Amino acid sequence: MEFSSKLLENAVYEMSQLPGVGKRTALRLVLHLLRQPKTQTDHLVTALASLRNEIKFCKQCHSISDKDICDICSNSSRLKDIVCVVEDIRDVMAIENTGQYRGLYHVLGGKISPLDGIGPQDLNISSLMEKVKSGEIKELIFALSATMEGDTTNFYIYKQIENEQVKTSTIARGISVNDELEYADEVTLGRSIINRIPFENALKNT
Amino acid sequence: MEFSSKLLENAVYEMSQLPGVGKRTALRLVLHLLRQPKTQTDHLVTALASLRNEIKFCKQCHSISDKDICDICSNSSRLKDIVCVVEDIRDVMAIENTGQYRGLYHVLGGKISPLDGIGPQDLNISSLMEKVKSGEIKELIFALSATMEGDTTNFYIYKQIENEQVKTSTIARGISVNDELEYADEVTLGRSIINRIPFENALKNT
Repeated sequence: MEFSSKLLENAVYEMSQLPGVGKRTALRLVLHLLRQPKTQTDHLVTALASLRNEIKFCKQCHSISDKDICDICSNSSRLKDIVCVVEDIRDVMAIENTGQYRGLYHVLGGKISPLDGIGPQDLNISSLMEKVKSGEIKELIFALSATMEGDTTNFYIYKQIENEQVKTSTIARGISVNDELEYADEVTLGRSIINRIPFENALKNT
Repeated sequence: MEFSSKLLENAVYEMSQLPGVGKRTALRLVLHLLRQPKTQTDHLVTALASLRNEIKFCKQCHSISDKDICDICSNSSRLKDIVCVVEDIRDVMAIENTGQYRGLYHVLGGKISPLDGIGPQDLNISSLMEKVKSGEIKELIFALSATMEGDTTNFYIYKQIENEQVKTSTIARGISVNDELEYADEVTLGRSIINRIPFENALKNT
């Protein structure tokens, strides 16, 4: 692509560095901004800059927060002895949306992935160990995605705390609510049979 | 979506104002920026801000440019008496990429679209009229998209300059090179039959 303007080329290049945004999409987005009132670009620029400069991470759970301790960690009505281990803040938001969880979170900031050069030292694992070793936590719920990396991370943490007095659990894998059995993949279906639950329990949850 | 941080919410909101970017995509993009080194956000922010603040539009063709007169308009080897009327700079770039056009451009900045509240006065039409009336232009090539709005705009401009000494033409519509006839829509196929060209001409162009 040849550009008639260095400024335009620069803006398109930087925009195309975002994941899933190619050169053409970047050009479309940038031209859109040029057609809109200048205030829209100003707002976008200010919002991104202040996010990156002022953002804080909760000192307890490492989730994104405007304060030192996030609203969930500082909420006195939440159960302090149950901690759900998640990959990033999107998982926190997803679980919060269900309204089914009253404990705390611990955001790892990623998964162990040797291929991407991400090891345990790159994640918020040591602070999790401290929490567990302090004896404050009764149960640790693993809620990482069911991929190779997620399983590796779960296992790594599990091995570290094997000898500690803490219960570990992982969120249930199974057929999605409303899904047809015939379209489910066999691994998921297999797991859902092995991990079947008493029918009375299922009745209670509906 | 409930956010744990006002800064995050703000950034996601502003990002989701871009066309084709929903709340979820916006969140993904913003979290990506947070995971990358701070310099990436800085570069993006600076590029967008300086684009919006310093961008110029060529005084002759209204295309985006870093100078008062763009490289195409100031290029002495281009034919000054042929002007191609396009919607925006993307069309200029597309036509330039073909390497088949040696004339100048005139960027309208949009199409007449009453439904979107865009009338002739919102486009760069009056400056085009001046160019035509000055008698400098021999041929005007309409290269707007073949939609209702494009046709309306073509017709509006055509009516304005009907009595002037200028040839008007429009880019050929027809079956794309390499396309199978059976998959072409009937309007396009119909037009390509009505506007058929001597076979010798087609031979010359391949």
